[in-house]
Amino acid sequence: MTADDQQERLDAQWVTGFVDGEGCFHVSINKVREMSIGWQVLPEFRVVQHERDQSVLEELRRFFNAGKVVVNHGSRKELRIRKLSELKEIVSFFKRYPLKTKKEKDLEIFEQILELMEQREHLTVAGLTKIANLCWAMNRKVKPRFLESSETIRQKSLKRLRYSPTPVAIQGGLQ
Amino acid sequence: MTADDQQERLDAQWVTGFVDGEGCFHVSINKVREMSIGWQVLPEFRVVQHERDQSVLEELRRFFNAGKVVVNHGSRKELRIRKLSELKEIVSFFKRYPLKTKKEKDLEIFEQILELMEQREHLTVAGLTKIANLCWAMNRKVKPRFLESSETIRQKSLKRLRYSPTPVAIQGGLQ
Repeated sequence: MTADDQQERLDAQWVTGFVDGEGCFHVSINKVREMSIGWQVLPEFRVVQHERDQSVLEELRRFFNAGKVVVNHGSRKELRIRKLSELKEIVSFFKRYPLKTKKEKDLEIFEQILELMEQREHLTVAGLTKIANLCWAMNRKVKPRFLESSETIRQKSLKRLRYSPTPVAIQGGLQ
Repeated sequence: MTADDQQERLDAQWVTGFVDGEGCFHVSINKVREMSIGWQVLPEFRVVQHERDQSVLEELRRFFNAGKVVVNHGSRKELRIRKLSELKEIVSFFKRYPLKTKKEKDLEIFEQILELMEQREHLTVAGLTKIANLCWAMNRKVKPRFLESSETIRQKSLKRLRYSPTPVAIQGGLQ
């Protein structure tokens, strides 16, 4: 028996209640020069707490058996889960124990984005645009930077279409 | 069967998890000229949410059968429970379903303050000082205004002791 097993396991309903309060499903789309499409989609599940409650984050980490507890900002810590396979498990948990706040809606969108990523749509401009619009709906106020500049990208893709040796990826970008 | 009964009741563990995230036990000590001691102790339990999740606050209100949902600030709503008898029920609930964050400590202090109020200690300077120190421990950073001025009050009470026709209350104030 490991040290983890000896710990009292959190109650699933408690976890849902706590995440209804403190959890966050977030997807950012970051400019990354190294990637062929120039943008990286980064979905993550976060629970932030003051460092005095770091032990609760550790308990959550054990509960989900996923992610890590890292510094969020100043004296705030966060449980951060970014791995796609682990995020899928998180989604599946909250289908069994549904959230009661509007975060349930965020989760639905989050799941759609994960599915699009599984289908590798985030590697095409059309897919990225779809994802960016979903992000926008999820994060409510903030329009993803990608959408601001997607028109430019679209123009570039059109140009590349004329000369590119890799039409498949570009076709995706124009769907 | 009332409309309330037909609603699906919240799970107690979900409630604890949600309050671990979003709940707040708070005691303020306000200057009130109308009261003989000049200060009023106001304990309250609050859960604040954006108005888009007002329905969750209503569900909590039904669950506890206590308090009311009011405007907190701008587009934020709160479930607010202030009645002493209802607050005692809240404390009793969280003894059965213990909080997992440091709010558990706040609850312990909150309970002590409620007990002091039941013993009517908040009507004496000594009792108020005890309560104010507990508040300070609970709210961590903010020193209650009462403590800032309690030295002045103490002086006044001493003067009143010399001339007052109501020695019992004043005696309490000097315990």
